[in-house]
Amino acid sequence: MKSDLDFLMHANQIDAILATGPGDHNPPMVYLTGGGSLTNADVLKLRGQAPVLFHSDIERDEAARTGLRTVNLASYPLGELMKAANGDFLGSMVLRYQRMFEEAGLSRGRVALYGRMEAGAALAIFSGLQKAMPGLSFVSELGSTVLMQAMATKDEAEVARIRRMGQITTQVVGRVADFLTSQRAKDGVLVQADGQLLTIGEVKKRINLWLAEAGAENPEGTIFAIGYDAAVPHSSGAASDLLRLGQTIIFDIFPCESGGGYFYDFTRTWCLGYAPDEALGLYEDVLHVFQTIKYELQVGAPTRQYMQLACQLFEERGHLTTCSNPQTQEGFVHGLGHGVGLNIHERPMFSQLASEAERLQPGLVMTVEPGLYYPKRQMGVRLEDTIWVRPDGQVETLAEYPLDFVLPIKN
Amino acid sequence: MKSDLDFLMHANQIDAILATGPGDHNPPMVYLTGGGSLTNADVLKLRGQAPVLFHSDIERDEAARTGLRTVNLASYPLGELMKAANGDFLGSMVLRYQRMFEEAGLSRGRVALYGRMEAGAALAIFSGLQKAMPGLSFVSELGSTVLMQAMATKDEAEVARIRRMGQITTQVVGRVADFLTSQRAKDGVLVQADGQLLTIGEVKKRINLWLAEAGAENPEGTIFAIGYDAAVPHSSGAASDLLRLGQTIIFDIFPCESGGGYFYDFTRTWCLGYAPDEALGLYEDVLHVFQTIKYELQVGAPTRQYMQLACQLFEERGHLTTCSNPQTQEGFVHGLGHGVGLNIHERPMFSQLASEAERLQPGLVMTVEPGLYYPKRQMGVRLEDTIWVRPDGQVETLAEYPLDFVLPIKN
Repeated sequence: MKSDLDFLMHANQIDAILATGPGDHNPPMVYLTGGGSLTNADVLKLRGQAPVLFHSDIERDEAARTGLRTVNLASYPLGELMKAANGDFLGSMVLRYQRMFEEAGLSRGRVALYGRMEAGAALAIFSGLQKAMPGLSFVSELGSTVLMQAMATKDEAEVARIRRMGQITTQVVGRVADFLTSQRAKDGVLVQADGQLLTIGEVKKRINLWLAEAGAENPEGTIFAIGYDAAVPHSSGAASDLLRLGQTIIFDIFPCESGGGYFYDFTRTWCLGYAPDEALGLYEDVLHVFQTIKYELQVGAPTRQYMQLACQLFEERGHLTTCSNPQTQEGFVHGLGHGVGLNIHERPMFSQLASEAERLQPGLVMTVEPGLYYPKRQMGVRLEDTIWVRPDGQVETLAEYPLDFVLPIKN
Repeated sequence: MKSDLDFLMHANQIDAILATGPGDHNPPMVYLTGGGSLTNADVLKLRGQAPVLFHSDIERDEAARTGLRTVNLASYPLGELMKAANGDFLGSMVLRYQRMFEEAGLSRGRVALYGRMEAGAALAIFSGLQKAMPGLSFVSELGSTVLMQAMATKDEAEVARIRRMGQITTQVVGRVADFLTSQRAKDGVLVQADGQLLTIGEVKKRINLWLAEAGAENPEGTIFAIGYDAAVPHSSGAASDLLRLGQTIIFDIFPCESGGGYFYDFTRTWCLGYAPDEALGLYEDVLHVFQTIKYELQVGAPTRQYMQLACQLFEERGHLTTCSNPQTQEGFVHGLGHGVGLNIHERPMFSQLASEAERLQPGLVMTVEPGLYYPKRQMGVRLEDTIWVRPDGQVETLAEYPLDFVLPIKN
């Protein structure tokens, strides 16, 4: 939780956090500033101190609105920095960070570095800064960084925002279901009122529109995939595909607040008109695992235990899984879930890769998303809810939605 | 232009380009892959060779759709890499890049590094790779990199996409103008048909909706700012502000293709109902500079010459400018324009910071956007079109739109 940040910095021997990059669609910046339309900025937080926002002169009002202590970068005139760096732009950027750090009283210690940047610029600037300030060391652990540890558990205000995204998400899913069931079928495919064949592209256009209407964005896209594409977990669905009856459709929707705030993550699998027995069998297997896992979740248990349970349940029903066949492209081929917050994928991991130390704890918001994939049979099924582990230890689904598999279609 | 890439790599002594990060909303990746919904991938291009796309196993179909040569990262099993790196995740990532580079025959030379990444991860992985492969050096120039030089000039296919975004942009601007002029004024502010006061937030919601309807996104937001906010160039406008008659409204809209493709950039300034003389004076000054600059643009001239001309024209009319007063927050306080493409801001620069070598040349797509800002008077004016320098050297505005200042409002 954000309030744990100083404690986590202490526990990990981090003396300062530097977050950099755009103010939107950049989780570390959004987390530390609360959001705000800054083109590019830096936040420097020393352990035990409030964060300080460094902003460009023309964004002084946007910066002030964050409520953070601010420093106008006009107080480091570029001309002067360029002169001091003998006309080298990279050198002038390094020098600016050096002055920012020195004025904050930070000339030695461990600095954790965050935020969205061009990879080449990050390497150039911060390896330059490392040379210029040998007393500093940049913390280079990937994965479970201090900020990600803090972000993994959400406070009530964060949960309220995720819950609101859940309501928007399920409302849009409901509109899509209503839209599909209001179409007619002809020769096994959906046909619009004007006689045009309905395509995945048309459905996705409506999803984008309805999300925008509700004030949400889907910067990572939406998966609405039928047939073979549903059988490959990350296929987002081909725009020209038709909506054929009796084929599995995976609808995985993961929008965020406008400007790149909190996400929600949700999946249902549908068959239009009717479900072939084989698809129904897969659906029942996934539903069984989905409901069993949700029922079994308990504070204190390692997350990977549930991945193992999901694999075991699928294997008992005759499916391959990555637990026993890491290379399999059939059966249960991905992790059971992941944390959700300002990142669509964040801590905790819910897979075999999770360490023993990753355990269910109050404040976590995460997905439960078992699935089965059979590319050769052109079938895929996945069910996903986003759950919250409440302060009292109870597990709550943040947005309820029916688990119907077949959507009835008129002929 | 993309076809110049090998030549530019040669001229800059670059042996390879590595682009990394998400496949969407990540200009270097979109440029090299043509787009595609990849969660995370790498593109390695050796000089004189076609680019190779490294993708995760579950995104093999999305990867194949790019038409590039592909390598499935499943051929570098994580378990094996982790073992070789003694269980260190960072080490395993470094090792994977090392193997990718070595198998591509790249063990020495200069590598230019691109793509959106977490700053800390970029520093950790690529400084680790630098140590593991001392024969490689990562090119660290900021600003005018090889890829940015290539991207600055657009081929006809790219211009067609930007032009289409221009049409969408001006259509949405027209809808906003129609919407505003269809409202009634009461006590000096716009009132909706249902009697509710119209707010900036309501206008922005419609802008987002109409952009989504047209298949566009605005990942960087939209500036629709009135009064004091219009007088501060980067204020995006407060959602709760009312639409008061006689105040300057800056409407700066810069959407991109869905998924993070090509941008368009466009600004008009409006006064609802009437314009006070002082605002009209500012508008005429900006219009004069805007039209003069557009008329004067000539292939071969250094871009900064136009910045100087804009400053001179504004100063002749009694305004302060950053040319002679770098710190001023009144008058003409920003650059005259910038390149537009997969980035909303790219090469060339159109300001005093541009080098003598940055010249107008065929293929450039860039903005012309003079403006005047008077925070104390709560007035700001900016006009902006996106122009293309055609292969024949003629300058063309990619989307025409009227230059009316006052939008008539019924009482």
